[in-house]
Amino acid sequence: MADYTKMWKSLGIDIENHNALLAGLGQAYTDIFLSQKNRPEGMKYFDFVMSEVHGLRIKEIVDAKAEGRKVIGSYCVFVPEELVLAVDGVAIGLCAGAELGFEAAEALLPRNTCSLIKSMFGFKLGKLCPYVESCDVIVGENTCDGKKKAYEIFRPLVKDLYVMDLPQTKSETGRMVLKEEYRKFIAKLEKESGKKITVQSLRKGIEIVNAKRKAMIRLAAVRAADPAPISGLDALLINQVFFHDDPVRFTDSVNKLCDELEQRVKDHKGVFPKGTTRVIVSGCPMAVPNWKLPMIIETSNAVIVGEESCVGERGTRWLTDIKGNTVEELLDAITDRYFNVDCAVFTPNPSRVSHVKDMVKKLHADGVIHYSLQFCQPYIIESGPVEKELEKSHIPTLRLETDYSQEDAGQLKTRIEAFNERLKKK
Amino acid sequence: MADYTKMWKSLGIDIENHNALLAGLGQAYTDIFLSQKNRPEGMKYFDFVMSEVHGLRIKEIVDAKAEGRKVIGSYCVFVPEELVLAVDGVAIGLCAGAELGFEAAEALLPRNTCSLIKSMFGFKLGKLCPYVESCDVIVGENTCDGKKKAYEIFRPLVKDLYVMDLPQTKSETGRMVLKEEYRKFIAKLEKESGKKITVQSLRKGIEIVNAKRKAMIRLAAVRAADPAPISGLDALLINQVFFHDDPVRFTDSVNKLCDELEQRVKDHKGVFPKGTTRVIVSGCPMAVPNWKLPMIIETSNAVIVGEESCVGERGTRWLTDIKGNTVEELLDAITDRYFNVDCAVFTPNPSRVSHVKDMVKKLHADGVIHYSLQFCQPYIIESGPVEKELEKSHIPTLRLETDYSQEDAGQLKTRIEAFNERLKKK
Repeated sequence: MADYTKMWKSLGIDIENHNALLAGLGQAYTDIFLSQKNRPEGMKYFDFVMSEVHGLRIKEIVDAKAEGRKVIGSYCVFVPEELVLAVDGVAIGLCAGAELGFEAAEALLPRNTCSLIKSMFGFKLGKLCPYVESCDVIVGENTCDGKKKAYEIFRPLVKDLYVMDLPQTKSETGRMVLKEEYRKFIAKLEKESGKKITVQSLRKGIEIVNAKRKAMIRLAAVRAADPAPISGLDALLINQVFFHDDPVRFTDSVNKLCDELEQRVKDHKGVFPKGTTRVIVSGCPMAVPNWKLPMIIETSNAVIVGEESCVGERGTRWLTDIKGNTVEELLDAITDRYFNVDCAVFTPNPSRVSHVKDMVKKLHADGVIHYSLQFCQPYIIESGPVEKELEKSHIPTLRLETDYSQEDAGQLKTRIEAFNERLKKK
Repeated sequence: MADYTKMWKSLGIDIENHNALLAGLGQAYTDIFLSQKNRPEGMKYFDFVMSEVHGLRIKEIVDAKAEGRKVIGSYCVFVPEELVLAVDGVAIGLCAGAELGFEAAEALLPRNTCSLIKSMFGFKLGKLCPYVESCDVIVGENTCDGKKKAYEIFRPLVKDLYVMDLPQTKSETGRMVLKEEYRKFIAKLEKESGKKITVQSLRKGIEIVNAKRKAMIRLAAVRAADPAPISGLDALLINQVFFHDDPVRFTDSVNKLCDELEQRVKDHKGVFPKGTTRVIVSGCPMAVPNWKLPMIIETSNAVIVGEESCVGERGTRWLTDIKGNTVEELLDAITDRYFNVDCAVFTPNPSRVSHVKDMVKKLHADGVIHYSLQFCQPYIIESGPVEKELEKSHIPTLRLETDYSQEDAGQLKTRIEAFNERLKKK
């Protein structure tokens, strides 16, 4: 591995703590991912990406900046990468999944804040994330109360925080709010980059992101097979890398992997024996390196065959219509695409549970594990009605509430094993 | 006291538990309110109102219904009483302040839900609130995540739940969202009542509510005097009665009380000795019978001279411009008035802390006690920056987080006494 110390120093990274973070991350990756059996060959690309996650990819981003390209970081799937690409920018997902810097975060935030938000502060305050430090603009958004109010405190910590408003209902007014926010975001991107979005550049952006999402939809579909051709852990990892890799290279790599997985399906080959208990994980997003729950599930005699999550199908399942002939028409198409996203911050949010049911059917799942981050009110409150609706449709459901610590790992394992037993007897 | 059992039965009230509730409430009222010294004569009206809170007032409401008037319940100061009055309706605030029915509520809601929301469910599930049971329509609103998502679960429990969307920013789009929601609400009210809102009826509604708010502004102003002519407990009570009493009679009673209080000021008479430590309470609303914190404060050598809360100045301080000559113009004026409300669900929300500072100055307060309900993310997160800003302006601030239980009363008293000592030394 190349020595990136100079680059990290130039970004203001705390070298000592960052080295410790990378060492821990590398060990966790070895233990959790590389120890898996029957992994597809195509995962080697993603292993490489992860081994260089704060190295080569950051160098690419730094090089892009040197060429005058703008780096736009965000924490939510409502921020359209299409628009960033249309000004030749680099879009980076910044959500953080590690319990780091929480003491510093809790000096600014209530203890009763979800781990995702604390981690976002922790990485920034600890100077541990070269992605955050590379950003020209960081885009926040008014999704949940936690993030909405936390961005007010986050603002003075970063160079340029731009907060996008979001609607709370799937109404006509709601769609209008979203479209106007995207229009304002275009103006911001044009101002930052000094580039005007054109029909051509926007269409190109949409095509790149559509291709990326198509590859993810292909990956999601192949997991319907029994035996499952890929583990849930590996599929989650790909969904995580989705947010920070070069989009074209990423798409190629996912498609190459899918070629292999489709061949595996034809050959009836998989990562776990045929007949292994199959679950869908539904709920809050899991950002790198939050692999706790899937690791517990897949070492408890079950395989995850789908993620109903922002880091999963909720973030990838719709494409954007490319037919428009003007920027305005394409903006409408982008608005329509993103307005589908069935995050629990919307009220009511019936399409989410319908989608979970569809996933169970298409992916031949035996049950659903609903995952909420502690203190995430939208998903925790919604989990009650979701469970009720799924159980009414005879889909066994387990509701879990956890955080980024490892303290509850044993307790989670006990509950998950009991649930998997219930599924086996079905 | 008249026997209302028949009326309560007809409303579906659980008589036995409701009797127990009233007995407990009566005792608490006696202990907390009637035990105060030097109370103004004008409080007798409010004592009477409270003694008949589930009796005579409910009878009035039931009688109004018999005359064909519609009863509209709500949980938030963003629901304009002006519009309800314009269709000759009765507007009732339903927020609940008692730890009742929490076990039943927690079967539907996460335990990590604020007491206010649990109480809203508890009163309904326990059949303990004749106000809720009298409503033709209950209006919810998308303020915080907790309420927004809880209304989805509340819907099947009530006859007609109407949920109003609300903006999250004080932007042009935000104002438009609010105005459109008020327009939709007018349509709903017109449909329910069979009455069309006219310039005359709307102006009359505005005048009634303006007069009510003017009386509250007068009451707020008189508390600037030292000695304070009225206790914070009594002033809070009046702010609570604001939400369910007949508005015209209420206004008269507040004005009569203010005549007396203004005379007290001239005579240098008050409820506590001149020089008593003065505090502002800022934060979450306190619904009846949530009197825990003010009682502790005012039995700890301090007097509350203002409430920066929805049940307080945040709900009462602006009037609506009456100049408009069309329903549209008056609707604009109503939108402008309510768009001022600086609830912590807005981001950013700078006018709230400015208002707290203004209150400290005008009311000659020595410090601020910031009150958050546990799990209320908007106010808890905002309390950090609010404290920082106030302390920067040399305004001592104490942040408290509590719920409806009495378990932490001792701990709160210790902290409040220590804070009051700090203020005395200032």
